[in-house]
Amino acid sequence: MRDVSIIGIGQTPVDEHWGKSLRHLAADAVLAAIQDAAVERADALYVGNMLSGVIAGQEHLGALIADFVGLRGIEAFKVEAACASGAAAVRLGYVAVAGGLADVVIAAGVEKMTDESNEVVTSGLAMAADGDYELPHGVSFVAINAMLMRRYMHVYGVSHDDFANFAVVAHQNAVNNPNARFQSSLPTSRFLDAPMICEPISLMDSSPIADGAAAVVLCATELVKDPARAVRIRASAVATDCLSLHDRRDPLRLDAVEMSAQKAYMQASVAPTDIDFFEYHDAFTIMAALSLEASGFARPGRATELAREGAIALDGRIPVATMGGLKARGHPVGATGVYQIVEAVQQLRGEAGANQVAGASLGMTQNIGGSGATVVTHILEA
Amino acid sequence: MRDVSIIGIGQTPVDEHWGKSLRHLAADAVLAAIQDAAVERADALYVGNMLSGVIAGQEHLGALIADFVGLRGIEAFKVEAACASGAAAVRLGYVAVAGGLADVVIAAGVEKMTDESNEVVTSGLAMAADGDYELPHGVSFVAINAMLMRRYMHVYGVSHDDFANFAVVAHQNAVNNPNARFQSSLPTSRFLDAPMICEPISLMDSSPIADGAAAVVLCATELVKDPARAVRIRASAVATDCLSLHDRRDPLRLDAVEMSAQKAYMQASVAPTDIDFFEYHDAFTIMAALSLEASGFARPGRATELAREGAIALDGRIPVATMGGLKARGHPVGATGVYQIVEAVQQLRGEAGANQVAGASLGMTQNIGGSGATVVTHILEA
Repeated sequence: MRDVSIIGIGQTPVDEHWGKSLRHLAADAVLAAIQDAAVERADALYVGNMLSGVIAGQEHLGALIADFVGLRGIEAFKVEAACASGAAAVRLGYVAVAGGLADVVIAAGVEKMTDESNEVVTSGLAMAADGDYELPHGVSFVAINAMLMRRYMHVYGVSHDDFANFAVVAHQNAVNNPNARFQSSLPTSRFLDAPMICEPISLMDSSPIADGAAAVVLCATELVKDPARAVRIRASAVATDCLSLHDRRDPLRLDAVEMSAQKAYMQASVAPTDIDFFEYHDAFTIMAALSLEASGFARPGRATELAREGAIALDGRIPVATMGGLKARGHPVGATGVYQIVEAVQQLRGEAGANQVAGASLGMTQNIGGSGATVVTHILEA
Repeated sequence: MRDVSIIGIGQTPVDEHWGKSLRHLAADAVLAAIQDAAVERADALYVGNMLSGVIAGQEHLGALIADFVGLRGIEAFKVEAACASGAAAVRLGYVAVAGGLADVVIAAGVEKMTDESNEVVTSGLAMAADGDYELPHGVSFVAINAMLMRRYMHVYGVSHDDFANFAVVAHQNAVNNPNARFQSSLPTSRFLDAPMICEPISLMDSSPIADGAAAVVLCATELVKDPARAVRIRASAVATDCLSLHDRRDPLRLDAVEMSAQKAYMQASVAPTDIDFFEYHDAFTIMAALSLEASGFARPGRATELAREGAIALDGRIPVATMGGLKARGHPVGATGVYQIVEAVQQLRGEAGANQVAGASLGMTQNIGGSGATVVTHILEA
């Protein structure tokens, strides 16, 4: 197996891109990544996307985008794993390059969510849950997370207020990210006063829907021409769980997060204490807490304590969501996993500007599909 | 790179499966393949599917089906490349095993199309075409193929009647396939009298929509326990083209078919004359003709002549659609590419019953997405 590096990154601002079609948005990110990587060709393109069928009425994104960016002819597919589609595309690129079947692969994620009504988007996102056993009860994705949060508060005796820090830190980090959806800080008081969407989940527990695209260029490390800017993929690991909450061993234990993280630690021969920052999947604050715990950064029930102690801030023990996370950078679902990796590369190159994590050399990204049914974890090294 | 073999196959009948959900249908095929392979575990599951979002309101099929067949935890994604989604899943499995990142991978294809109205299915299939440049003109997929067929007839001076043999042969081969949608022969007179759907494409030029699932188990050849039943993958090749007809170099030259087939021949170090049978993508008779030509089995404009001479029959020079093809076995879009490979394995194991191609040792399968924008070609060897 060959060592794999990321040699180029590209991203569009996360925003409402009403003036750009899906393919234009994707092309902006892919062409930026190609330019950043200074490559002229690629062997394959994998595109992470969840909702193009129900929102844009367009599938077949692999060939569509390959052609549109000037790579007509190359191998190209769309991959879907709900909100983990983006990192799934990177994972497939990693497999192809590590295994020697390709030298250079582009992995992209793209999602346009703001062209349609909230009803269409909410039903679209619900396709990440179990359509036979969860949706007939009328639950949306917010409701599923609300059940998790309610149980977490009950079992561990924490209050809704205790989750504030996850949102506050994310917004603080987004202030200096020109690609973030919300480039504004969030006073704790605003978190505490936020209207409830689905109790106990408030507006400020929730990541926003958005349009966006991000891309990375993967290359066999032995072929990298500019090693100084390349970021090595030390681990790439996927695990799955059942889609529906009621069928889990313990709803508060995200088994797939744990399995995926443990596999990644083993591949990289590192422990959670070695990780310098963590781009986690804070679709809701409860997901932030559960993934910190299942990934080994906090004991069960103690993630809010970790956050309260300042450990998740940029100068803390385990900085998270360093460019704003899903909460403030925004969550264009099929693109999110690639944004996380793009931002990790910015950190590891020392290009994160005001948000630079001092001395960052090992970063972890984790993209979660559904309420924890598909988890893709990567560990990257400067 | 490691040699890869297919050690297990499974399929459901292609039919209207109103009594089974998407996951049940997929599980039937996957569990049959697992049993056939006599394996107890797999490292990953890739699921080819195009329309589950718009028809079943369900995405996230990777984790869903992995869990449902008892493989909770393993890496699992859905892959989409329009009607080539099935073979794309097999391709990704091949990449993982050949590259050494997995030892055993299950590749499945599943599609349920008959639960919804024809309007929903027709618009769903149209997502394989260019949503910005083709669909605004009101063309459906039948119409796109009708334009190709009309031009073919004009340029090469052949008549609609000349296409009869593609459909007649497919139906003849389906008579003995218990999994085929139409297990009935098609008299040439019925082809000639068939009602037009979109001139010059008649009902009998067209493959039927259907429900179905198929699966294969891939394994590193060095780990195969029962070599007598294993079928080697000698080539796995993908090529893409633009989605829209108007942007092609020549609409009658399927460039991606040609590139994909040429790559496959090179990988396997064989020529078209070495291929004993060809599971081609006869979604419409015009696609059958164009893919025979672009794959090197007939010169441009001469495919109908090849068919008239009997070369595509089971005892001909290049038997096609040996178990009924898309035309008569049926075309559950995301599953079709896996059905083709399952049927090729049946031939190469000598398990094709009355349809056995005598002495078949090298078979080719070709799955086409859209009107030729994604093409996945495999060459298999007994």
